[in-house]
Amino acid sequence: MSAVSKRSRVKRGAKRACYDQQAIYAILDEALVCHIGGIVDGYPVVQPNLHWRVDDKLYIHGSRKNALINAILAEQQTCITVTLLDGLVLAKSAFHHSVNYRSVMLYGAPREITDRAAKVYLLDALLEKCQRGRSRQARPASPAELTATVVIEIPLQEVAAKIRTGAPVDDVSDADWPAWRGVIPCALQWDAPISC
Amino acid sequence: MSAVSKRSRVKRGAKRACYDQQAIYAILDEALVCHIGGIVDGYPVVQPNLHWRVDDKLYIHGSRKNALINAILAEQQTCITVTLLDGLVLAKSAFHHSVNYRSVMLYGAPREITDRAAKVYLLDALLEKCQRGRSRQARPASPAELTATVVIEIPLQEVAAKIRTGAPVDDVSDADWPAWRGVIPCALQWDAPISC
Repeated sequence: MSAVSKRSRVKRGAKRACYDQQAIYAILDEALVCHIGGIVDGYPVVQPNLHWRVDDKLYIHGSRKNALINAILAEQQTCITVTLLDGLVLAKSAFHHSVNYRSVMLYGAPREITDRAAKVYLLDALLEKCQRGRSRQARPASPAELTATVVIEIPLQEVAAKIRTGAPVDDVSDADWPAWRGVIPCALQWDAPISC
Repeated sequence: MSAVSKRSRVKRGAKRACYDQQAIYAILDEALVCHIGGIVDGYPVVQPNLHWRVDDKLYIHGSRKNALINAILAEQQTCITVTLLDGLVLAKSAFHHSVNYRSVMLYGAPREITDRAAKVYLLDALLEKCQRGRSRQARPASPAELTATVVIEIPLQEVAAKIRTGAPVDDVSDADWPAWRGVIPCALQWDAPISC
């Protein structure tokens, strides 16, 4: 179970908060892209990255020369956010328009994985997330490639999901307003692989 | 044309950098979700939000009680990042696996729009981005609803895109490695509207 802290507790829209471990894991496992937040030279920086989960830890990787990667390791803090958009929610009133989504926010102290065997195991897990079996097909990383890649672990402890599903929530007084009301669902779709 | 600053210049993977205004606008206009970065009580926070563009400004909105919204207005700085995932790139080597994507990073000083007529105009533009014609169909915001909604403007000046397209880039020495090599494209797909 996630440990709800002052900062990880969902404040706005608390009825959409979700602290269930399996629900949080499912969002993280479905999403490929995360957004990593850190402080670089005093200003906030948000970069997209790929993330993957092994048990109760989240992993990201990056270049050893990446300023944000180095900053979150030096500052020992990051916020990583994952968002899946599920649809547009069209309400009777402009104000109650919304989106259906599933998001996760994780706060924590990032730790670099330096053990070579652990790095290989973890990077294989990323390949497997992208395509099952891929880690046994691709040419394994060379020592130099492994050195150039930073693998970072963040415990899935100070973490919360926020989920909105379903129909618009309209004011009763808008019931007769003559606007269409409903949801336009969306999802990431994968096309057929293209050989190169 | 965007003004390239020290922090908005793409450092890693500079060959994928793009400072072309129309390319940046196209990414912002296609994407619905952005990730807003700020510093709250000394730690980085990244929240998903919707964004929209009018001319050479980017807009976000949120609750007046949202801690991140208040923090970026108080600190007069934010980083807003938008990412569109276009596909998985499977290379011969584990190291050269990648993703195709189009992302935009914007740094700047957020400014709250307080003029009521301007807020109505801008929130209408968000509705129009979600569905053309919607701003004329939905029940307009009441004065109380307008007051509860903060609309924030950031100039599209200190901004850069990063784009990866096309095939894997493999090492010549991996040419004979017996792994499939190619791209698995993906895109956000919209389904038929569901009336509620």
